[in-house]
Amino acid sequence: MDIVDFVAQSIGHWRSQRSAHHLAFAHFEAVQSEIDILSLSVDDPAVLALCQTYGVDPQLAVSPFQMSWEGHSDWEDSEVIKGSCTLVPVPSPDQPQRGKLLRDQGYAEEIAAAGDYYFTNDDTFVLVTAYERAAAEEKIWFVNPNVRCRVSLIKTSAGSGVVTASFSSEIRQTP
Amino acid sequence: MDIVDFVAQSIGHWRSQRSAHHLAFAHFEAVQSEIDILSLSVDDPAVLALCQTYGVDPQLAVSPFQMSWEGHSDWEDSEVIKGSCTLVPVPSPDQPQRGKLLRDQGYAEEIAAAGDYYFTNDDTFVLVTAYERAAAEEKIWFVNPNVRCRVSLIKTSAGSGVVTASFSSEIRQTP
Repeated sequence: MDIVDFVAQSIGHWRSQRSAHHLAFAHFEAVQSEIDILSLSVDDPAVLALCQTYGVDPQLAVSPFQMSWEGHSDWEDSEVIKGSCTLVPVPSPDQPQRGKLLRDQGYAEEIAAAGDYYFTNDDTFVLVTAYERAAAEEKIWFVNPNVRCRVSLIKTSAGSGVVTASFSSEIRQTP
Repeated sequence: MDIVDFVAQSIGHWRSQRSAHHLAFAHFEAVQSEIDILSLSVDDPAVLALCQTYGVDPQLAVSPFQMSWEGHSDWEDSEVIKGSCTLVPVPSPDQPQRGKLLRDQGYAEEIAAAGDYYFTNDDTFVLVTAYERAAAEEKIWFVNPNVRCRVSLIKTSAGSGVVTASFSSEIRQTP
C-alpha cells in the first residue's frame, strides 16, 4: 500500500458512524455523517495554492483530493457539522512509505496544517499532525474495499496526554 | 514490542469506554466497564488445562494472564456485563513477532478459542480469531503507558462482511 493506492481506494461516497470518547469526563458522543472524497487534478488552483503556502514544489504532489462532510452529533442536536478541505500528499523522495500531507484546514484547529504520514506493514495509514495547542494522531485502514476504520486521537501539545479518542467506521455507499 | 512486553504493559486495572457500531442498522452502543488484567504463573492449573485442551506444550507458553471485566451498556440498561477469561500466549518458535493466543472463552462466541496474533512495525498487537459462525479481528496499541486503544471487528465467517466494529479507549487507574 502506498499513498496512490490509499487515495484511490478512498475515493467515493461514505456513510460514517463516529464515536468520540472525551476521556476526562468519560463522555460518549455519537456522530453520523456522510463523507465525499473526490480526486483533484494536480494543477487544480486549490492544490497549487496549498503547495505555495508550504513552499512545496507542486511537481512533488501526488493524488490530491478533496474531502467534504456533513453530519450531526447527539451532543449538539440542532447543529449541522459541515465542512470541506483540500488535501495534498507529498511523498518523501527517498522513502515512498512516508511523506507529508498538506491540508488547508485541520481537524483539531481550523487552520492550515501539514502532517507527517507513514504506512505500517499491515497497510494502516498513520498521520501525525502538530498544532499550536494540540497534536493529532490518526490511523486509517481498510477492512475490505468498502469498509474503512479511522481512529483519531487528540493529544495535548506535549503529546502524552490524550484528550479525545474517536473512532469512525465508514461504509462506502453504492453510487 | 513482543508479547512479553505487551502483557507486562497491560497488567493493571483499567477504566474502559467502549463504543460498538452495529453497522447494518447504524446503531451506537456505549459500554462503560472496569477491566482487571492479572499476571498468571505458567504452572497455574488454568494455564496447564488450556494448553492441554489445545495440545500445546506448556513449556512454550509465555506471560499467561487473566482478564476480568464488569460493566454496563446503554443498550440493556439493567444488565451487568461481567466475565473473566484466561489467556495463554504461545509465540512461534521461529518468528517472535507472531504466535497463537489461547483463551478459555472467546468474545464473539462463548467457547474456547485460539487466535493468531502478530505485531506490526508500529507496535500494534493484531489478533485474528476464527469462530464457527464468525471471525474476529482485534487491534490493540498503547498511546502512552496509561492509555491503550482497542478496535474489535466481528465479521461474517467468510471474513469479508463486517457486522460490528467497536472501539475501546482504556485508561489505567492508579492502584
